[in-house]
Amino acid sequence: MTGTQALLAAVGAGVRTYDLGRRLTIGMPQSPNHPPFWHALPRRHGDNVRADGGSAANDIITMGTHVGTHIDAFAHVSQDGRLVDGSDAAVAGRGGRFAELGAHTIAPMVRRGVLLDVPAALGQPDGCPPGYEITPQDLSAAAQRQGTPIRPGDVVLIRSGWGRLFDHEDRTRYVGHASGVPGVGAAGATWLADAGAHAVGADTIAFECLRPGAGHSVLPAHRVLLVERGVYIIETMALEELAADAVHEFLFVLSPLAIFGATGSPVRPLAVIANG
Amino acid sequence: MTGTQALLAAVGAGVRTYDLGRRLTIGMPQSPNHPPFWHALPRRHGDNVRADGGSAANDIITMGTHVGTHIDAFAHVSQDGRLVDGSDAAVAGRGGRFAELGAHTIAPMVRRGVLLDVPAALGQPDGCPPGYEITPQDLSAAAQRQGTPIRPGDVVLIRSGWGRLFDHEDRTRYVGHASGVPGVGAAGATWLADAGAHAVGADTIAFECLRPGAGHSVLPAHRVLLVERGVYIIETMALEELAADAVHEFLFVLSPLAIFGATGSPVRPLAVIANG
Amino acid sequence: MTGTQALLAAVGAGVRTYDLGRRLTIGMPQSPNHPPFWHALPRRHGDNVRADGGSAANDIITMGTHVGTHIDAFAHVSQDGRLVDGSDAAVAGRGGRFAELGAHTIAPMVRRGVLLDVPAALGQPDGCPPGYEITPQDLSAAAQRQGTPIRPGDVVLIRSGWGRLFDHEDRTRYVGHASGVPGVGAAGATWLADAGAHAVGADTIAFECLRPGAGHSVLPAHRVLLVERGVYIIETMALEELAADAVHEFLFVLSPLAIFGATGSPVRPLAVIANG
Amino acid sequence: MTGTQALLAAVGAGVRTYDLGRRLTIGMPQSPNHPPFWHALPRRHGDNVRADGGSAANDIITMGTHVGTHIDAFAHVSQDGRLVDGSDAAVAGRGGRFAELGAHTIAPMVRRGVLLDVPAALGQPDGCPPGYEITPQDLSAAAQRQGTPIRPGDVVLIRSGWGRLFDHEDRTRYVGHASGVPGVGAAGATWLADAGAHAVGADTIAFECLRPGAGHSVLPAHRVLLVERGVYIIETMALEELAADAVHEFLFVLSPLAIFGATGSPVRPLAVIANG
Repeated sequence: MTGTQALLAAVGAGVRTYDLGRRLTIGMPQSPNHPPFWHALPRRHGDNVRADGGSAANDIITMGTHVGTHIDAFAHVSQDGRLVDGSDAAVAGRGGRFAELGAHTIAPMVRRGVLLDVPAALGQPDGCPPGYEITPQDLSAAAQRQGTPIRPGDVVLIRSGWGRLFDHEDRTRYVGHASGVPGVGAAGATWLADAGAHAVGADTIAFECLRPGAGHSVLPAHRVLLVERGVYIIETMALEELAADAVHEFLFVLSPLAIFGATGSPVRPLAVIANG
Repeated sequence: MTGTQALLAAVGAGVRTYDLGRRLTIGMPQSPNHPPFWHALPRRHGDNVRADGGSAANDIITMGTHVGTHIDAFAHVSQDGRLVDGSDAAVAGRGGRFAELGAHTIAPMVRRGVLLDVPAALGQPDGCPPGYEITPQDLSAAAQRQGTPIRPGDVVLIRSGWGRLFDHEDRTRYVGHASGVPGVGAAGATWLADAGAHAVGADTIAFECLRPGAGHSVLPAHRVLLVERGVYIIETMALEELAADAVHEFLFVLSPLAIFGATGSPVRPLAVIANG
Repeated sequence: MTGTQALLAAVGAGVRTYDLGRRLTIGMPQSPNHPPFWHALPRRHGDNVRADGGSAANDIITMGTHVGTHIDAFAHVSQDGRLVDGSDAAVAGRGGRFAELGAHTIAPMVRRGVLLDVPAALGQPDGCPPGYEITPQDLSAAAQRQGTPIRPGDVVLIRSGWGRLFDHEDRTRYVGHASGVPGVGAAGATWLADAGAHAVGADTIAFECLRPGAGHSVLPAHRVLLVERGVYIIETMALEELAADAVHEFLFVLSPLAIFGATGSPVRPLAVIANG
Repeated sequence: MTGTQALLAAVGAGVRTYDLGRRLTIGMPQSPNHPPFWHALPRRHGDNVRADGGSAANDIITMGTHVGTHIDAFAHVSQDGRLVDGSDAAVAGRGGRFAELGAHTIAPMVRRGVLLDVPAALGQPDGCPPGYEITPQDLSAAAQRQGTPIRPGDVVLIRSGWGRLFDHEDRTRYVGHASGVPGVGAAGATWLADAGAHAVGADTIAFECLRPGAGHSVLPAHRVLLVERGVYIIETMALEELAADAVHEFLFVLSPLAIFGATGSPVRPLAVIANG
């Protein structure tokens, strides 16, 4: 039996796939800095029926790439005019696309994934409070409690519990401008990078700790991860189901759209575990 | 060792991931029936530098869902006014979205995948001729030659060789209206459904055999697969690299964007094999 | 001197043109029922400089047609399944466009225009109160006070004073869902149609009187004007300058984009008066 | 009788309005350098019927601003890095919009318009040949033949006859990349500016003389008009009807959408003449 056959056998024996992406719907919460998601059907069934009785419907979508569940390409953020590779960020985007560090350069991920359930580690069943900064100690405590140390190359998903607000009828709640939003700061980001994370994710729009009313005025974790350390960031993830099932270790799969030159891509990441 | 740990061990031992998606670029070949892919950067680095020296760039995209590599939801095609579940197709799309059979209902796929390399089976190193209808015999011959019989639940990718034209400077070549395009017809589609395929894919825009000049006037394989048999179709795939490496069996992973109510989704499918 | 030369002479003697359209900007107030206005520059100067030193910048825009200052085509509203011409509204929109009553069928307007300054007539310097229904008596009083009776074929613009909120930093104020918005109801709409108005306009998003919290649940003036009487509606107009200058009678010019099959068009209407 | 009443009387005595704009339809000819026009109905009648039997349909559109009939803002073109006001073109577009010279700064036009019917002057009933450069002598001959000298402040529309190809079933014909397109060059543009034109227009996409196969590699008339002389350019106009009726002098009205910071705007210009 080849290695691939062993892999297929493992999958064939039964796996469960957790969907870590949010549904894309008109009006879902998103940052006002980005073009909103919109969808329409230019053609519906019955509009144009072929002689044989067949008919097709189709779509138009318009959106930013940092809406819904998405991954940030390294081109997304610069510091002091430089991207992660030291290149001049303004020059890199000339022509309206980032040829070197755009979304098309994000390699698909098939890696070990670890969920760090921070509220569980902190004993906060309702999730981290608004504006709470998740510390390296919190991350470490979560990893230890779960028995899932981070290994180099892992994808590390940080649950703050904020994801429960995604479907709140007041869509400004999840965005959290007034209340603030829990997340890591520079220290937590550094801890994640030091642990060797290939990519990190969270159940919030901005990944970061946002202070009440501060909005996106400073985004230190983005600086650390995207510019200084070369770690991808995945945002607006759905992590509640993993947490409810206490799934802390899994095969993480993410395949961004290869949008040439873009600063990010909408994605639907997966966590795969073996049954039984 | 749990099953998940075995899965992670298999991956940790080394896998190779083939990217089966095409890059999304402005001007790439696509059907004129669908809104074209377009991308711009509303914000570039330097437009708005924060006090701490940080800057973010972002995107706007507009596109159909049947452009680039994509998967058809069952809502895409109807026959005699009915969708695959027997529902009235016009009623199902009321409100501008398909709540029951839209793209958000396509479960992510982590399954055995099989590439049927038809030109290899037929001894046609330059690929199937334009307009050639790939027959059940061709499919069967390819599976047999490769030693990769189709099993129920598989994702079956049919290589016609047409993918070599995707990057042709004359972008009408890949669309192939004048020349015709190779692919299966109703017979081949039926064979695939009978074999138990969960989804099928091809290296062409329309999956189907298109006769020269006929365009999309009839799409019998779509009818068989999407309406009669409930088999998903993946189009505009990049299959040349798999074929060049003679990779005919693999772990297939596809995670469509959960676009609520849409008739399809852009995707970047993966084929994963074990190294060595 | 021909009639055209007389017309040119009148213009040549000096005219003043009032801009009755709102500026289209990202984030401007608009109804959440419609795709928001968004704009980006795919190409900027310097991206692609020609050998001769020339460079061009360009745009992408995405928007609904009922955002910003716009005109409703008759296709926009139906009552009991019928459009103004008695046609079946669902059938008329088949194919995703209204071939008969779409925006492309709105003839450009070069007509007498009358501003009815309702707050001035009612002695309300701060404008009509939120949710106030402008009555036929109010309209009649304004016309009489100004000495500008409505004549058949006129375009009648109704100032409620609400336009002062368009640039309010809280963009929900102008939309006015919570507060309600002043405007005519069925009675006022009937009065306008009876007076022979060719088109009517207002300084609010919905033209109608909206009760606090009721939103767009009922739109009786739309029914009367667009479906029963065949009178166009222009919304989100800028009428403050006309009112400040006490310009109540003018040459009204409006030239909608001929968007084939659309339910409306963004416009920038003009009021032209002779100097001196 | 006030001046405004005289103006209204002139209009009231009967005017004819010529529509100089092209219909916006999916698939119409346009330059591939710009995002194509697309339109869909997110909501159709019957999707969401209110309790009172009312129903509304609406639209989404996505497009460049240099598609269909449109006007170029001065921000559109730079020469050696400078815009018409001498400002740095790259700096002016920072933030993704041109605050100083964008489309929102184009004042609506209510001016004398002159059609220069070049094919009529040259005795070419089928229009100017592909790639023909319209010379100052041609322009002068047309003005003289018609008895319509250009006066400072006029809008001057140059008919080449190419507009007959706009509806050609081969949509590449009107774009004319292979054949070339007739139009003025630097000399003709200079003549127009010297004559005092406020804006100029043509019945072609690029206004310019395009040599066969050369495309938009050099656009000298744009340089002269938009950068050196401050004259607006209107493209893709419908001038055949004016020419057929031998209407060479008229009231020209154009009201661009006030798209903040854009490099152009779709428009529907009008030519108004007195009846009789």
